[in-house]
Amino acid sequence: MTYCLALKLTEGLVCLSDTRTNAGVDNVAKYRKMFTWEVPGERVITMMTAGNLAITQAVMSLLQENIDNPEPEIETLYNAPTMFRVAEIVGDAMRVVQTQYGPGLSAMGESAMSSIILAGQRIGGKTRLFHIYSAGNFIEATDDTPYFQIGEHKYGKPILDRVITSDTPLDTAITAALLSMDSTLRSNLSVGMPLDLAVMRADRIGFAQLRRIEENDTNFQHLSESWSAALRNAFAEMVGIRV
Amino acid sequence: MTYCLALKLTEGLVCLSDTRTNAGVDNVAKYRKMFTWEVPGERVITMMTAGNLAITQAVMSLLQENIDNPEPEIETLYNAPTMFRVAEIVGDAMRVVQTQYGPGLSAMGESAMSSIILAGQRIGGKTRLFHIYSAGNFIEATDDTPYFQIGEHKYGKPILDRVITSDTPLDTAITAALLSMDSTLRSNLSVGMPLDLAVMRADRIGFAQLRRIEENDTNFQHLSESWSAALRNAFAEMVGIRV
Repeated sequence: MTYCLALKLTEGLVCLSDTRTNAGVDNVAKYRKMFTWEVPGERVITMMTAGNLAITQAVMSLLQENIDNPEPEIETLYNAPTMFRVAEIVGDAMRVVQTQYGPGLSAMGESAMSSIILAGQRIGGKTRLFHIYSAGNFIEATDDTPYFQIGEHKYGKPILDRVITSDTPLDTAITAALLSMDSTLRSNLSVGMPLDLAVMRADRIGFAQLRRIEENDTNFQHLSESWSAALRNAFAEMVGIRV
Repeated sequence: MTYCLALKLTEGLVCLSDTRTNAGVDNVAKYRKMFTWEVPGERVITMMTAGNLAITQAVMSLLQENIDNPEPEIETLYNAPTMFRVAEIVGDAMRVVQTQYGPGLSAMGESAMSSIILAGQRIGGKTRLFHIYSAGNFIEATDDTPYFQIGEHKYGKPILDRVITSDTPLDTAITAALLSMDSTLRSNLSVGMPLDLAVMRADRIGFAQLRRIEENDTNFQHLSESWSAALRNAFAEMVGIRV
């Protein structure tokens, strides 16, 4: 399983992903699920993937192959004129890969279901956030629903529902994303450290943060323990309330 | 969907269920999912159901039919000598109903999956808590894992994981169960008010509480709002922590 989330705030974009994959509980591995492309000041793109690992790896490889060995007429992540076109290019790659492997997987009773979160900005455009489905179609985040989650999304949803709006400051949103991930890590073994964090401040067209948070990261551990203590204290206040 | 949970504490048993059912989002209804049987001082039994509503209703009806129109040799919820035998009787009824309707449902591509939480105590025995599956087999809660959830269980699991142990006092456990339900109600439309709450104090062999909490219950609303405020305050403390 996987847990990835992305938030689109007025101040910018926050992306956070775990790195655990599993094919059954006895086949657990560590894979990066966050992929980034950057031309500072011109375009910045982050993608995160969930679902069938072979499918999502093939989509990412196909997108990168078209950048590395371009045919003249092919549009790529690096020359697409808008983030909307980037989303279409990713959707097209998803459809190509699904057409190639989907029927074979289906015949074996395996799922080819995959999804991709795409976040980024191109110079002259706004920050945009897309959720791309297995069929290559996609939806875009709006002010009403300023975040997307893929993978094991339920454990970490309550905290986002309670604190995230479009106007949430970027630092606050990073904290909310990390606590959403923390709740998921605690409740589901199929989601695991380390984490990958990408922060793109609006109109800077680059990464304000792009880093891995390791299992032994003392700052993250401190946040996690502080949150546990704060929740226990908050809960202790509730026990006196008569229902 | 559904959300039911039961906690087995040293001090007793807590059961809480919602009342929303749906067949698609355009076919929503209200059904009681908690069923109780009581001979004060002799036996007290609570069951909660999730999954295919026709299946679980048939199981409950079959169990009640055997009580109301007993054949001499049939063991029922009212004369089974132990809670373990009660669990077996419920499992047997589940198998009868699954055998009757399972293949037909399967042929139509519909799921017959159902599950039942069974909690109670018989005089001379201990409080016991069982989770009965579609195949009629079951597991029992232990001190290591003193709670069961069925239905839409993920949103409400983090709070239980953080605060519930076997030694949690009964009143604290009731609060935790209500907050677990509150998180689920907020994040998933397929779980809805009113709620049914049953509390069985150990060795009293009867209901300390057995009541419905309606949508407009001011005490529950107060708890829910207080929890929101406490969580927001707890979260505000986290924002200053540098990660």
